[in-house]
Amino acid sequence: MSQVRVHNFAVSLDGFSTGEGQSLDAPFGHAGGRLMEWFFHTRTFRDMHEEGGGGTGVDNALASNWGPGIGAEIMGRNKFGPQRGPWEDHDWAGWWGDNPPFHTPVFVLTHHPRSSVEMKGGTTFHFIDASPQEALEQAREAAGGLDVRIGGGPSTVREFLAADLIDHLHVVVVPIVLGRGVRLWDGLEGLEQRFSVESVTTPSGVTHVTFTR
Amino acid sequence: MSQVRVHNFAVSLDGFSTGEGQSLDAPFGHAGGRLMEWFFHTRTFRDMHEEGGGGTGVDNALASNWGPGIGAEIMGRNKFGPQRGPWEDHDWAGWWGDNPPFHTPVFVLTHHPRSSVEMKGGTTFHFIDASPQEALEQAREAAGGLDVRIGGGPSTVREFLAADLIDHLHVVVVPIVLGRGVRLWDGLEGLEQRFSVESVTTPSGVTHVTFTR
Repeated sequence: MSQVRVHNFAVSLDGFSTGEGQSLDAPFGHAGGRLMEWFFHTRTFRDMHEEGGGGTGVDNALASNWGPGIGAEIMGRNKFGPQRGPWEDHDWAGWWGDNPPFHTPVFVLTHHPRSSVEMKGGTTFHFIDASPQEALEQAREAAGGLDVRIGGGPSTVREFLAADLIDHLHVVVVPIVLGRGVRLWDGLEGLEQRFSVESVTTPSGVTHVTFTR
Repeated sequence: MSQVRVHNFAVSLDGFSTGEGQSLDAPFGHAGGRLMEWFFHTRTFRDMHEEGGGGTGVDNALASNWGPGIGAEIMGRNKFGPQRGPWEDHDWAGWWGDNPPFHTPVFVLTHHPRSSVEMKGGTTFHFIDASPQEALEQAREAAGGLDVRIGGGPSTVREFLAADLIDHLHVVVVPIVLGRGVRLWDGLEGLEQRFSVESVTTPSGVTHVTFTR
């Protein structure tokens, strides 16, 4: 059976995976880039954005596992963009430009379905109103036997964890206190008992924690 | 000037430093011993309890910094014991037996002051109704030029951090999701900006995070 995976998912010491006040200019709200600094410096990130350079150490080794073996992604609507409620801007096609780094079908969970949007490079956004189980079923079919990535944000990851649908969770604890935003861990008491847990701190100061079956 | 230090202070991934439902049999409530497992295996802990053995690796090196240079401790009443409100059991003298591991004056913050209790081995419990600043002034005087340790629990550590009275904070992130209890980080947004922060994961699976000036 194909796996359901979460990668490169950052969380602050106080458990927030995004800040407060998301907007066009601030995908992570008041958190700004602070949760993802460690990632911006990796070769994996630079390659995604067709920039050169970037580190090839442990942060990158873990970050690079994001892509291989993935046949589809599921993301929440707040990862896709800052709009809430009925779609007003139908031209919005995500934060990632015309060639998004996914290169697979991407299922966007929303209570306001709309037509699919095909991008360059193999990414197609599908907009579905579905439970985690239903979304996973569709994504698995689209993935053709490959793994499915749950791309975030925190509410989406939390729902899939609560439904016990995730096989591999890679969390990156960033040593900052965000104070407000969207919490990752709420309602997940005892989560570690369902997984093997490993931790490693890297020179960037973050701690990678992997939950695997 | 003497320093104000916090050592060996554990916190779960979701930011709880103690569980729910403290009682005589469960000082950490439903968390049980899970937040302190890493500590129980160190030589420092074994020595405190006059037991032999215990690890002498990185967990122990960090744990061992707890004692040296400390001239007084301040603790919250909930670290001292499970009683709330006016004291009913005046015989209660903490969880630590007749020779507690502190060996200094210990100031217990409470809205219900009572007479001091002198224990074996140099520990004396003083019960004071005081703000963090006032308590620190008293503890500094008692410490005779040595450092003051803020011993916990989470509400006490949080209050001293909020008042910016702490110079050295050693937090131990334990990769469990407690779900409920008392949170450490509430109201401390941007705490890291006041400190240099370092992290290291050890083979026990915990991550030591030090906040120093």
